[in-house]
Amino acid sequence: MRKLLVTTAIGSLGLMGTAFAEDAAPTTTEVKFLIDNLWILISAALVFIMHLGFASVEAGMCQRKNTVNIMFKNVWIVCIGAVGYMLWGFNAMYPGDFGGFFAAGSPIAAGFAEGQDTVDNLTSAYADYTYWADFIFQAMFAATAATIVSGAVAERVKLGSFMIYAAVLVTFLYPVTGSWHWGGGWLAEKGFGDFAGSSLVHAFGGFAALAAVIILGPRAGKYTKSGVKPILPSNLPLANIGVFLLFLGWFGFNGGSVLSADAATVSLVFVTTAMAGFAGGIGAILMSWIVTKKPDLSMALNGMLAGLVSITAGADVIPPYLALLAGFIGGIIVVLSVGFFDKIKIDDPVGAISVHGVVGIWGTLAVGIFGGGNFGVQLIGTLSISAFAFITSFILFFIIKLIMGVRVDEQEEHEGLDVAEHGVPAYNDSAN
Amino acid sequence: MRKLLVTTAIGSLGLMGTAFAEDAAPTTTEVKFLIDNLWILISAALVFIMHLGFASVEAGMCQRKNTVNIMFKNVWIVCIGAVGYMLWGFNAMYPGDFGGFFAAGSPIAAGFAEGQDTVDNLTSAYADYTYWADFIFQAMFAATAATIVSGAVAERVKLGSFMIYAAVLVTFLYPVTGSWHWGGGWLAEKGFGDFAGSSLVHAFGGFAALAAVIILGPRAGKYTKSGVKPILPSNLPLANIGVFLLFLGWFGFNGGSVLSADAATVSLVFVTTAMAGFAGGIGAILMSWIVTKKPDLSMALNGMLAGLVSITAGADVIPPYLALLAGFIGGIIVVLSVGFFDKIKIDDPVGAISVHGVVGIWGTLAVGIFGGGNFGVQLIGTLSISAFAFITSFILFFIIKLIMGVRVDEQEEHEGLDVAEHGVPAYNDSAN
Amino acid sequence: MRKLLVTTAIGSLGLMGTAFAEDAAPTTTEVKFLIDNLWILISAALVFIMHLGFASVEAGMCQRKNTVNIMFKNVWIVCIGAVGYMLWGFNAMYPGDFGGFFAAGSPIAAGFAEGQDTVDNLTSAYADYTYWADFIFQAMFAATAATIVSGAVAERVKLGSFMIYAAVLVTFLYPVTGSWHWGGGWLAEKGFGDFAGSSLVHAFGGFAALAAVIILGPRAGKYTKSGVKPILPSNLPLANIGVFLLFLGWFGFNGGSVLSADAATVSLVFVTTAMAGFAGGIGAILMSWIVTKKPDLSMALNGMLAGLVSITAGADVIPPYLALLAGFIGGIIVVLSVGFFDKIKIDDPVGAISVHGVVGIWGTLAVGIFGGGNFGVQLIGTLSISAFAFITSFILFFIIKLIMGVRVDEQEEHEGLDVAEHGVPAYNDSAN
Repeated sequence: MRKLLVTTAIGSLGLMGTAFAEDAAPTTTEVKFLIDNLWILISAALVFIMHLGFASVEAGMCQRKNTVNIMFKNVWIVCIGAVGYMLWGFNAMYPGDFGGFFAAGSPIAAGFAEGQDTVDNLTSAYADYTYWADFIFQAMFAATAATIVSGAVAERVKLGSFMIYAAVLVTFLYPVTGSWHWGGGWLAEKGFGDFAGSSLVHAFGGFAALAAVIILGPRAGKYTKSGVKPILPSNLPLANIGVFLLFLGWFGFNGGSVLSADAATVSLVFVTTAMAGFAGGIGAILMSWIVTKKPDLSMALNGMLAGLVSITAGADVIPPYLALLAGFIGGIIVVLSVGFFDKIKIDDPVGAISVHGVVGIWGTLAVGIFGGGNFGVQLIGTLSISAFAFITSFILFFIIKLIMGVRVDEQEEHEGLDVAEHGVPAYNDSAN
Repeated sequence: MRKLLVTTAIGSLGLMGTAFAEDAAPTTTEVKFLIDNLWILISAALVFIMHLGFASVEAGMCQRKNTVNIMFKNVWIVCIGAVGYMLWGFNAMYPGDFGGFFAAGSPIAAGFAEGQDTVDNLTSAYADYTYWADFIFQAMFAATAATIVSGAVAERVKLGSFMIYAAVLVTFLYPVTGSWHWGGGWLAEKGFGDFAGSSLVHAFGGFAALAAVIILGPRAGKYTKSGVKPILPSNLPLANIGVFLLFLGWFGFNGGSVLSADAATVSLVFVTTAMAGFAGGIGAILMSWIVTKKPDLSMALNGMLAGLVSITAGADVIPPYLALLAGFIGGIIVVLSVGFFDKIKIDDPVGAISVHGVVGIWGTLAVGIFGGGNFGVQLIGTLSISAFAFITSFILFFIIKLIMGVRVDEQEEHEGLDVAEHGVPAYNDSAN
Repeated sequence: MRKLLVTTAIGSLGLMGTAFAEDAAPTTTEVKFLIDNLWILISAALVFIMHLGFASVEAGMCQRKNTVNIMFKNVWIVCIGAVGYMLWGFNAMYPGDFGGFFAAGSPIAAGFAEGQDTVDNLTSAYADYTYWADFIFQAMFAATAATIVSGAVAERVKLGSFMIYAAVLVTFLYPVTGSWHWGGGWLAEKGFGDFAGSSLVHAFGGFAALAAVIILGPRAGKYTKSGVKPILPSNLPLANIGVFLLFLGWFGFNGGSVLSADAATVSLVFVTTAMAGFAGGIGAILMSWIVTKKPDLSMALNGMLAGLVSITAGADVIPPYLALLAGFIGGIIVVLSVGFFDKIKIDDPVGAISVHGVVGIWGTLAVGIFGGGNFGVQLIGTLSISAFAFITSFILFFIIKLIMGVRVDEQEEHEGLDVAEHGVPAYNDSAN
């Protein structure tokens, strides 16, 4: 009785077959399929919450007066990113038989309502999950690339320009390099290893960000004649929330990339992912303490993220103790890298270029060093992906600059984008 | 060794049989049962976190001076709601064979400790989950209806009065309309389709809220002779956290409503749910930009929620591209609806009546338009549920008003409820 | 095609066998293993997010000026705790055949990369999950003990001293009592029941905290001649986020402690856990309203946590209505206990000693009263664990005090640790 009645009522609307006859016992292959598919879906939900993580880190690390703008950008990115991926990106990234550099996209199939795809999945290429599970997991991934850029250009980018840039980046550019490896393109054929995207997602986003920041220039008043003026974060508890949610989501980002619930691999991936993240935190705490003589919370948080990026390419092939080492090195690198970019006056308010770009390269190389991958192939792969991201992002952002400008005017930047562009402050402390 | 010892130790306390003999290989039906049941439980946890989402949206959208009051109400609602549902609501909502309008409730069975229910579940009505999994999933749902009201009456409702109102609403009123459809009542017999509750949860909450707001009246100073005075949100990052947590929870709200881990249906539900939510965000961004000439973060956030409400009734039967369209329309509706209610001086601080009430009706009708449902039945169903919610909420709130009043006095409203009722501010910025 | 190519590419790196041959149908035992293992891993992720919960509660409940310090401590604890547990604690806590009081630890095995452990797990002691899943779940648990202490010593503890203390506590002390029960030691042999750690985790942390607080002394200005001076929480929405995330994580903390996805037991555990948490909230709301004449949000939140601690020892053996009662009593106890400690001038900014220590004892005894356990054994067990935690923590913290001091100087405490130790405030409200 109870809910079964409902199922019947809805079944009478004439839709959705299930994969199993209700009365016959399912086969073990069918039951295994259920678990694998469920894990992909749960992972998609975990990756989704990373978007809240990114928004919270960025808002917390930046100035109070630009908080609404940051969150608005992030809502836009995840919304338009998923839609663009549905209409073009997914099929451009996974074009089927493909050994090349570029494939055209197209809207995803609509035919699932008749149930055909599931049956196909059970018996053909999709051994472990449905077409829809695959799509939604990948769609949640896709938007993260643009979100990485968002952090680096924060506090001075023109909203409309960035909205167009982000939509194009996710829909048309990210799938190209994605197809090179995950879509079966030339890097896959070379035996490149990038399990969950140290290069395909993180270095891609990081170097796309670098190009945009070079065009955009630093925030007003950051680099003065008397040296670098620190711009203090507005809300570190918010940044802390963001980083821990990113860490949580990473269990789906890496864990779901196993593309099944295989007990051995998913368990190893959980261990390598978490331990690399923890070691990255320790590495950054120690390194920044040495460099700045202070226990630096921002660096500790970025160190955890760097540890996670460090293991993303090799979470399935790097043994736990080497994962610990890879993450620890990532935590050290991020401290040095953030210092380096400040020295060359590349202004990246949240450290995205370092965390995702530089450490993304490190994570990809780590597969060659610690995970049995071919170092040369790893190097070629990560440089190709990073270069493609940098160059196409540069061209795209430059064209947008020519057409409509990419930077808010001085007055707006000074006032803050929240009131200037959105007409409302993020925090209203008055009693009204 | 290890943990198995513990299991033995606890086993020796003489409780909890497991469904499977430890030495015999389980059947595939038994293993499938494990997955289905686990998914319901994980979904219950996801729906639980929606309560944090609601509290955070409401606190973020309202004024700083009423933040403690808002969070206190939300803690109360989820606590008393679940207990009331345990003692009355669950059995009133799922009375067993039932084609009617009303069934009496009673405390849930206590006999599970002997394991009997599980065995029953494996072989009888419960094909896919245990009695306890069913209960806890539904209990997490139940309290959301009262939470929706909480947002609409915020900043001027009397705490004690609202606490009584919410307890009665969840325990005695929500299960009545619930029984009409999910409990096998008259709407189920008519073939009404409301998969996860666009009407049964959201429109119910939204129209219960409308009744309460009409009795309560607007916040002081909101509607003045010179027009509507905007009352600014106190903490938009908090509201942003809330909306993304609600979105996350919706994967359990809709995904768990499949009531099994069926790969085809749960995958489709994830896609339709997420894409409708994203499209709702885009719809509201565009519509509000046209109307207010500003990129409006609050509307973008409410648009995502509206997209999710739009697909809640038909997440299992509306194909992905139509889900996109349903959500997009929902995002447009919410902008217009919020403007409309402000025009007729219905003061709803968080837009709950629009997001859940108006869009809840839209989502239910969408099953008739996009999902193969009978439009007439959908219309009758959603209007019946909304009318029942409105009328009974009106009567209940009116009686409470007569007996003990429902509104704080002017002085308290001006000062803020936090210090006046709770004796403590939500934020303390001083150095102490 | 698609992702399968990737799997092959990575497979060619020569690592990671899977448990199943890809072409042969798996056995039902193998498939059940997948589910059980996946649930342990998801639970590990849920327990991970509790660390964000703890940090947020503590930061929200304390003063604004110490927020960075609190979050820094929490990042350190989870990072170093997991690493210490990997290198020593796990093997000290689960030493294999063991009926004693103490076992030496050692680094966890590294051999999983060859796949051997998985095979062993399928056929030997590990019926339900892999070695890595076991480790990561337990590692996430381990760090919580030190986090509990963190809350009690907040706002005046010296950072470096606490960092050493926490590392030693998690790595060397927590596993000792852990081994007594979960590791098969003397308490396991006596038939002690502590399902998920009311004593082994919570009372351990709470009484370790009590010892540290006695040595450390109260915050300056808290206990004056004219009575107790309330120190207001700086950010209650942050505390609210923290408590709800802890509640969410508890579904993994208790639910994962079933150590399989057994439908009957996990379902019961979800119900008892959630209902005890809700009842704890109600109990604390009522009790504090009686005592203080105010609806007290902090107490409501601590009441939910107390309810959860109350059921943690007996979540698998206490029937739902008695779980409700156990949690309700826990909610009452916490209000009385917080008042008591303030009376005897034990200054615990977040109530950790009451919530985790006192209620941890209550939860353990509740197994004897409501769950069929032997009351005498429960009493001996919880007192032994609490005494061990108190005494060893006292000695450790005292030694650290002698060597390097444990308390910041008066000036630093007055200024706040954020600027004094970390050089940056948590919130920066200025426009920069």
